[in-house]
Amino acid sequence: MKPNFRGIIPPMITPLTGRDSLDIDGLERLVNRMIDGGVAGIFALGTTGEAPSLSYRLRHDLVEHTCRFVDGRVPVLVGITDTSLIESAKLAKAVANFGVDAVVTSAPFYFPAGQPELREYLEELLPELPLPIMLYNMPALTKTSFHREVVTWAMNQKKIIGLKDSSGDLVYFKKMLRLAASQRPDWSFLVGPEELLAEAVFAGGHGGVNGGANLHPRLYVDLFEAASAGDLKRSRELSAKVLALSDAIYSVGQHGSAIIKGLKCSLSLLGICDDFMAAPFHRFHKSERNIIREHLTEIQLLPV
Amino acid sequence: MKPNFRGIIPPMITPLTGRDSLDIDGLERLVNRMIDGGVAGIFALGTTGEAPSLSYRLRHDLVEHTCRFVDGRVPVLVGITDTSLIESAKLAKAVANFGVDAVVTSAPFYFPAGQPELREYLEELLPELPLPIMLYNMPALTKTSFHREVVTWAMNQKKIIGLKDSSGDLVYFKKMLRLAASQRPDWSFLVGPEELLAEAVFAGGHGGVNGGANLHPRLYVDLFEAASAGDLKRSRELSAKVLALSDAIYSVGQHGSAIIKGLKCSLSLLGICDDFMAAPFHRFHKSERNIIREHLTEIQLLPV
Amino acid sequence: MKPNFRGIIPPMITPLTGRDSLDIDGLERLVNRMIDGGVAGIFALGTTGEAPSLSYRLRHDLVEHTCRFVDGRVPVLVGITDTSLIESAKLAKAVANFGVDAVVTSAPFYFPAGQPELREYLEELLPELPLPIMLYNMPALTKTSFHREVVTWAMNQKKIIGLKDSSGDLVYFKKMLRLAASQRPDWSFLVGPEELLAEAVFAGGHGGVNGGANLHPRLYVDLFEAASAGDLKRSRELSAKVLALSDAIYSVGQHGSAIIKGLKCSLSLLGICDDFMAAPFHRFHKSERNIIREHLTEIQLLPV
Amino acid sequence: MKPNFRGIIPPMITPLTGRDSLDIDGLERLVNRMIDGGVAGIFALGTTGEAPSLSYRLRHDLVEHTCRFVDGRVPVLVGITDTSLIESAKLAKAVANFGVDAVVTSAPFYFPAGQPELREYLEELLPELPLPIMLYNMPALTKTSFHREVVTWAMNQKKIIGLKDSSGDLVYFKKMLRLAASQRPDWSFLVGPEELLAEAVFAGGHGGVNGGANLHPRLYVDLFEAASAGDLKRSRELSAKVLALSDAIYSVGQHGSAIIKGLKCSLSLLGICDDFMAAPFHRFHKSERNIIREHLTEIQLLPV
Repeated sequence: MKPNFRGIIPPMITPLTGRDSLDIDGLERLVNRMIDGGVAGIFALGTTGEAPSLSYRLRHDLVEHTCRFVDGRVPVLVGITDTSLIESAKLAKAVANFGVDAVVTSAPFYFPAGQPELREYLEELLPELPLPIMLYNMPALTKTSFHREVVTWAMNQKKIIGLKDSSGDLVYFKKMLRLAASQRPDWSFLVGPEELLAEAVFAGGHGGVNGGANLHPRLYVDLFEAASAGDLKRSRELSAKVLALSDAIYSVGQHGSAIIKGLKCSLSLLGICDDFMAAPFHRFHKSERNIIREHLTEIQLLPV
Repeated sequence: MKPNFRGIIPPMITPLTGRDSLDIDGLERLVNRMIDGGVAGIFALGTTGEAPSLSYRLRHDLVEHTCRFVDGRVPVLVGITDTSLIESAKLAKAVANFGVDAVVTSAPFYFPAGQPELREYLEELLPELPLPIMLYNMPALTKTSFHREVVTWAMNQKKIIGLKDSSGDLVYFKKMLRLAASQRPDWSFLVGPEELLAEAVFAGGHGGVNGGANLHPRLYVDLFEAASAGDLKRSRELSAKVLALSDAIYSVGQHGSAIIKGLKCSLSLLGICDDFMAAPFHRFHKSERNIIREHLTEIQLLPV
Repeated sequence: MKPNFRGIIPPMITPLTGRDSLDIDGLERLVNRMIDGGVAGIFALGTTGEAPSLSYRLRHDLVEHTCRFVDGRVPVLVGITDTSLIESAKLAKAVANFGVDAVVTSAPFYFPAGQPELREYLEELLPELPLPIMLYNMPALTKTSFHREVVTWAMNQKKIIGLKDSSGDLVYFKKMLRLAASQRPDWSFLVGPEELLAEAVFAGGHGGVNGGANLHPRLYVDLFEAASAGDLKRSRELSAKVLALSDAIYSVGQHGSAIIKGLKCSLSLLGICDDFMAAPFHRFHKSERNIIREHLTEIQLLPV
Repeated sequence: MKPNFRGIIPPMITPLTGRDSLDIDGLERLVNRMIDGGVAGIFALGTTGEAPSLSYRLRHDLVEHTCRFVDGRVPVLVGITDTSLIESAKLAKAVANFGVDAVVTSAPFYFPAGQPELREYLEELLPELPLPIMLYNMPALTKTSFHREVVTWAMNQKKIIGLKDSSGDLVYFKKMLRLAASQRPDWSFLVGPEELLAEAVFAGGHGGVNGGANLHPRLYVDLFEAASAGDLKRSRELSAKVLALSDAIYSVGQHGSAIIKGLKCSLSLLGICDDFMAAPFHRFHKSERNIIREHLTEIQLLPV
């Protein structure tokens, strides 16, 4: 029995042309670029996709177009994280019709839920879902983590099929992997921070949901494959490139939004899609855009 | 020129009979109880109202019925806090038709916005709003605070008419009051934590948005009036009762939800409305309910 | 039965001329200035006194000279907070010989102690102390707070005689006051943040341990007296001056050290004492010093 | 040019028989056990050694006896972290006489230092030190981290010879490694959390300062060697044992002290040394001790 998903599943940025309008051509180019780069799936409406900042109408739209462009070439996963269980369930039902393969939820994130509340939340959500679901651990933004007791419970739920961990805490990731070992060989354990991709795979993880794979999918796919093959030397070389990209692209802005801004700005400079950002964020100004352009040249994603 | 709102404006709990259904009779009793108790307004869809946990449909419903029951006797304020600016604006427009007097927003709360981002967010939101708006400072749940620079800017926006501060940080409250002093005598400064009501009024504040006023409106109104009149002795006596209520009712549960659970349970024991809670929370179990019953007797809200 | 201490007890800055040398003349001027200003005691070796940054030798020295200069005119309290119980006890014994009236301790602050551990810590420390002791609640720097259960226990210990609360959380302060009400009329409840002095006194507190009283003791003493007398109008006027001083002097630097740097720089500009700071901090540079000078003129502590 | 230290350097627990007395025989057994287990050095007076809780007298004593028992077989490193630069320097000078090889310091930890202050602190400390020094990144307990700018500066200081990182943030560890790559091939990068040992070595790190190596030095040495040799399969097997030990021994207590308590209790059950703990902590009660005994049997450190 194999894990449901293995490899790189980029948390897709949401290409926008305006506050509530999708950059549809950009989306098509982006989807094709990632699939051509060898990704194992696409994760729409995650944190990198600015999901909570988008209108529900646009979220539906995005998923519909994404599924159309992907056209079955790889699985599509969709984030349904919400503060309202009812809205989560509604979105899950809606996107199921577009051919989505699985949904993904983190904890409801306004009120910080205790662990028993978190379990009950999932217990209530599961019967509403027409699709399998992955848990998404994102404590920095949801104020809570899926603790051992909740994950142990989740492993007894057939509909729950894996864990995406964006905590940056590799000890947590390894401990959760260890819990699953004998019980759920079908669970996928995917790591969020791309700078930990190699190590997560060495530890037994199944891949990454790495923002940088929007921009340079092949690099992350290559690193995943090297790490899976146990090629330490090549993993270290490719990891150095991942760190270089991370330093170059994610450190230009000041606030928490620097990663998404850096990715969107880069994709815009590469001619893939617009870099409009949903409120409360705004695209980079010209000066920051110029720095990103220089950095893209340095890491050879733009010609000199 | 006087502040727009003065007095006690309870952050109304949302009476529910089930996951997505309103306790309409309970709502009517609750509204009447609060108005009979002398409140100066009603604030629907705040944190105590579990707003982020409710479906949008139910949020509309609640506001419509609330306005109907209030029937112009006091102003109605409605929380439109959301992670999506578009959904905030949409809700504001919808509720304006029901006769709401003002809307209230805290910071978008998934991504923690930096201060310049927060200002730009408000700048973009304001033109969309058909109603005046109050800012709602709630850093524990939104991960960010309205800093001096943003509040200073806000004081130059005619549509922004006040600040509700739930930070629990009375130094912040006093500093913001001081900023407004000469500039915006029409701004209302309302304090969230009821245990700080007297002190906030002594410092020049205009009232409180206090959860306990769902349960015992007269106590908070009396305290507000004593503090406004500069009656220190009576303020201290009534403050002691507020602290006693707070100790009795809010400390039964373990998690962050203990306050709302305690209020709903108490209102249910008093026969006002159902104590169903929206996910991720659940009403108290029988044992906790019994403790709340005893405590209500001790503080004389239930007969012996 | 009256509280042991009532009024303003400044947390004295430690005047230094170099890394490990006291500004003895400056200390004398400072002590006299505060006593002339009407303070009810002096608290040496607190946070504002940079105690943890000083050598033990210098701590002894400081207390010896302070007691000599005070010469019984007001009580002297001394901070013995340490990560090592043995060093705390040693310091307490040493300073008892100089005529100190009480010692003060916050929680041991490297390892964050749980509440039972905190109680046991105090239980072990008390028999070692030749002097009565006040608790000092400073969660921002010690990572832990004295919770209700520990304070309740402390109220049964004759040797513990009060609580200084620097949490900035006035709800906590009021709840602790309420605990003590019937049990320990001799306990002193003193508030740390000077911007909360009036409100703490209105709520039943007995005074303040306010950094600004190093610089302008009379202002804080006047405010304490106005608040004690229930004079709301005058309290509000004087509170405005306290906020103005706070804005003027504490907001020049960027880091957590801005308050101490601002105080020392001001005292140096007033000719009271040197502004040398113990590592890891450094005195203000010329540009910041010039801003402080302007601000001191604005708040009329320096002539135009 | 090779890194100064490579391999496992246990952060030695401090065996005590009472509040201020060393378990000297236990210390000798412990030192021998670790050296027999193949460790590459011994780190005394770290967090696991409860250093901040000990009297200075006992700290001196411990280092003197440790150096005597080690007798040159492996290097000895000594923690001099303190809130007072003068006490840090004093301890460094004292222990240099006992034959210590290097000292180790984290940030001064009462006041949270800003980055420029941290650099200036080190600048002032370095000339006082008779020995080379390693930086020790421990943000959870010191409230601050050594950021890129400070580490870059540190790489230009000959006397600074490495970084021990206990942040648990492997991305940070990798970024710091990358900074050093070309510049300081002599720097040692050691990881604190033992659950990250293999991954830290795969990423280019030089070893671990792992608490568990007090108890089972051979396991950590074997894992270090497997990871250094690039043996992924064996690393995974041994990592599983490390995780099992961590789950068995560190999760019995509730508070932050659970790791040290678990280690000391285990060593006591194995007959190595006393499990007395310095305030504010206490050794495990009988019930917890029995659980530890069972767990030690399960992981085969005690016979059935």
